Amino acid sequence: MAEKNTGKAVAEITPRDVDFAKWYTDVVKKTDLVDYSSVKGCMIIRPYGYAIWENIQKTLDTMFKETGHQNVMMPMFIPESLLNKEKDHVEGFAPEVAWVTHGGSERLAERLCVRPTSETLFCEHYANIIRSYRDLPKLYNQWCSVVRWEKTTRPFLRSREFLWQEGHTMHATAEDAQKETLQMLDVYANFCEKYLAIPVVKGRKTDKEKFAGANATYTIEALMHDGKALQSGTSHNFGDGFARAFDITYLDKDNQLKYCHQTSWGMSTRIIGGIIMTHGDDNGLVLPPAIAPTQVIVVPIAQFKEGVLEAAEEVRARLAKVVRTGIDTSDNSPGWKFAEYEMRGVPIRLEIGPKDIENGQCVLVRRDTGAKTFVPLENVEKAVQELLEDITKNMYEKALERRESMTHVAHNIEEMCEISETKPGFIKAMWCGDLECEEKLKEVADVTSRCMPFDAENVGDTCVCCGKKADKLVFWGKAY
Amino acid sequence: MAEKNTGKAVAEITPRDVDFAKWYTDVVKKTDLVDYSSVKGCMIIRPYGYAIWENIQKTLDTMFKETGHQNVMMPMFIPESLLNKEKDHVEGFAPEVAWVTHGGSERLAERLCVRPTSETLFCEHYANIIRSYRDLPKLYNQWCSVVRWEKTTRPFLRSREFLWQEGHTMHATAEDAQKETLQMLDVYANFCEKYLAIPVVKGRKTDKEKFAGANATYTIEALMHDGKALQSGTSHNFGDGFARAFDITYLDKDNQLKYCHQTSWGMSTRIIGGIIMTHGDDNGLVLPPAIAPTQVIVVPIAQFKEGVLEAAEEVRARLAKVVRTGIDTSDNSPGWKFAEYEMRGVPIRLEIGPKDIENGQCVLVRRDTGAKTFVPLENVEKAVQELLEDITKNMYEKALERRESMTHVAHNIEEMCEISETKPGFIKAMWCGDLECEEKLKEVADVTSRCMPFDAENVGDTCVCCGKKADKLVFWGKAY
Repeated sequence: MAEKNTGKAVAEITPRDVDFAKWYTDVVKKTDLVDYSSVKGCMIIRPYGYAIWENIQKTLDTMFKETGHQNVMMPMFIPESLLNKEKDHVEGFAPEVAWVTHGGSERLAERLCVRPTSETLFCEHYANIIRSYRDLPKLYNQWCSVVRWEKTTRPFLRSREFLWQEGHTMHATAEDAQKETLQMLDVYANFCEKYLAIPVVKGRKTDKEKFAGANATYTIEALMHDGKALQSGTSHNFGDGFARAFDITYLDKDNQLKYCHQTSWGMSTRIIGGIIMTHGDDNGLVLPPAIAPTQVIVVPIAQFKEGVLEAAEEVRARLAKVVRTGIDTSDNSPGWKFAEYEMRGVPIRLEIGPKDIENGQCVLVRRDTGAKTFVPLENVEKAVQELLEDITKNMYEKALERRESMTHVAHNIEEMCEISETKPGFIKAMWCGDLECEEKLKEVADVTSRCMPFDAENVGDTCVCCGKKADKLVFWGKAY
Repeated sequence: MAEKNTGKAVAEITPRDVDFAKWYTDVVKKTDLVDYSSVKGCMIIRPYGYAIWENIQKTLDTMFKETGHQNVMMPMFIPESLLNKEKDHVEGFAPEVAWVTHGGSERLAERLCVRPTSETLFCEHYANIIRSYRDLPKLYNQWCSVVRWEKTTRPFLRSREFLWQEGHTMHATAEDAQKETLQMLDVYANFCEKYLAIPVVKGRKTDKEKFAGANATYTIEALMHDGKALQSGTSHNFGDGFARAFDITYLDKDNQLKYCHQTSWGMSTRIIGGIIMTHGDDNGLVLPPAIAPTQVIVVPIAQFKEGVLEAAEEVRARLAKVVRTGIDTSDNSPGWKFAEYEMRGVPIRLEIGPKDIENGQCVLVRRDTGAKTFVPLENVEKAVQELLEDITKNMYEKALERRESMTHVAHNIEEMCEISETKPGFIKAMWCGDLECEEKLKEVADVTSRCMPFDAENVGDTCVCCGKKADKLVFWGKAY
């Protein structure tokens, strides 16, 4: 696995609680997830980082197909006139798109933007291919990269080009579109909680925070270790706004021409940043088993002794049939290897040495807790699979506990300011629904609304800002 | 499967031998593989076309990983100064790249081109991460889309944006690089022959036809039904040319600093055009089972009769466990369904009606030959799997036979001209190696060199053009 001992050691990672931002950058660089390129603000995703994305992609893609979606490829360019077709949408995206003006040595008659998102392209296509109610729903998705010309960038979290998937669907009725919007939010939430061990709050965005051109945006919000929120996946209901702008109609059973109802939903490589910032620690990455490129790393102990390498290779080969298994037979010391795979977040380290072989056992060390167990070699497959499940469960519970302990309640603006200044995390508070109050909270308490959760409780009945009657619970916080 | 009877019938496809180009366009449009968009020269790959690409991708990606390659993601942009670093390379590509000049409302300090290929980006990264012989080889691949600003375009065959994979590898020695170059050519050849049932000629490109910046380009050339060649995959050995331009060195065991040796290799969505033009017929697509989105389509006969739909669904569910199986229970007529799935190239149609149920059997109809067989329901899984294998074998043999019958020999320029004018296909002829002769053959006989095959025989000992001594056999022809 490791190609050479470059002498790097865990000590080189800034401690997480000393400087979280520096810790994050150290981790993504030192574990070879990304590299920078001469293209400012764009990242190179290296093999270890890309393998994580491939695992995410494989699982999500299966979930999309199980819910009836099909993949397509749209062009990466959008003619300026097409982008301009929906007013709110172009206002939201135009300031941050990259423009192609020349093809070869010729100036183009019309500028093309590199897609920041593909609603307009899908709408144009749907207008072409949808005729009757029998054509609906259309449930398309695409895996691709998109470009947004951001001023400041950070690997995975904010980058001028990033990988994502974007689902774009068309439905006969408003109810169908709403059902799809919420179904895909559930897919994202299940994926985060079950596979990534990241607890999320499901809810709706306020109008201020919703997607450019959407009627309603739904979100899953996760809390990072430093108490900042990460919007981890979004699902939008567009109503028939784009359909009217692009004239996407269908002939219904009753022989009436009607507008289609539309959704879109996306999850991106950003979620890799979320994995790092939810689970990582001072020793580096802690990867959820479902997406870890290597789930078990076999480390032979005293490998120069007779029979050790053979026994290690034998257990590797057996495990490789059920989980993603690696082995490190390099001449680096066991201690170096322990630190290396800890840093890379491999969920289980399997040690096997002369004594273990004698006793017909091996040692399993879990990355999340550091706990060691001795396991008979004869049922190592079962032990490893059970341990991986337990690791996922424990990682989820630990993250959930932390989120709960970092979720606070504010009843008035003074409390809001105090909590915002002194206690990192989510702040639950009631809101009257006025944009003015939302803006004031940003200005005075430095928080934005993260979401109006589905599982809403009442923590009061007056707006945290203006004191007027309020029935909307909002999660507030600072966000990536 | 089919969403509605739009009344389209196979009769709408132009007969293949009347107008091959029109036949091709009809097939890709009427089988819903692609659609056009308002972005000139860029295609939309629709679900049926994209599902073919996904199957291609899955198989190739497994082959790449089995040969030790890892996937990464490079940025889609290349700064102009970076593209300019290798002289031959930039000369080859600069005339056909798309240029990004603005980000948001600001003019960029340096223009960025949208990658036409990524040698320069990989080289920059490799220069960063390669230090010692222990870092080698580096075997990276990336799945992405690239852009080339072509003047005339056709779906899959030539399009301003297309999907592909590009492998880029770095090696310690020239021998290692050559071995990799040929290994990947073999991977492509095996993939085409075993999975796509497309026979290919493996060989080397002449200097005139090689890739911009490469020392040597190897190719697999397939012959389409109309007698034109399609370059179906290429593998390049760069020697250390780029390594010198980008200063990619490593410290060898002997403590000497040495330049790396490099390869790159690619296969694109173009191959979907190759599948269509190798196997398709007047009724539409004929898809090789390995990449067909639906391998078996179940069509119930007299489905209104009691028990038919249940039996059809039962056989579908059983088959779905072993092959990609669809069912069409729409109220379209069986005849309409037969034509529809024939057009879509589904390898096997399974018919089941009241009589079949009575007899405990079903009917299998193969797309490649139209042959019908009655099969006992109890071993339908085995029968279908064997038939799929036989279909692949037969499709390959048929294509090979056709290629052989369309491969001609020319001994002098008169023969070359006559064959080129009257007989579509490959022309085998000896060549002295002079660029002048190659150019003259293009001018006089309207043929280009396709490749110098590895399995070379001598069809003479003088150059087909100048009559001087010659020992290189070349496959000549017209090409896509």
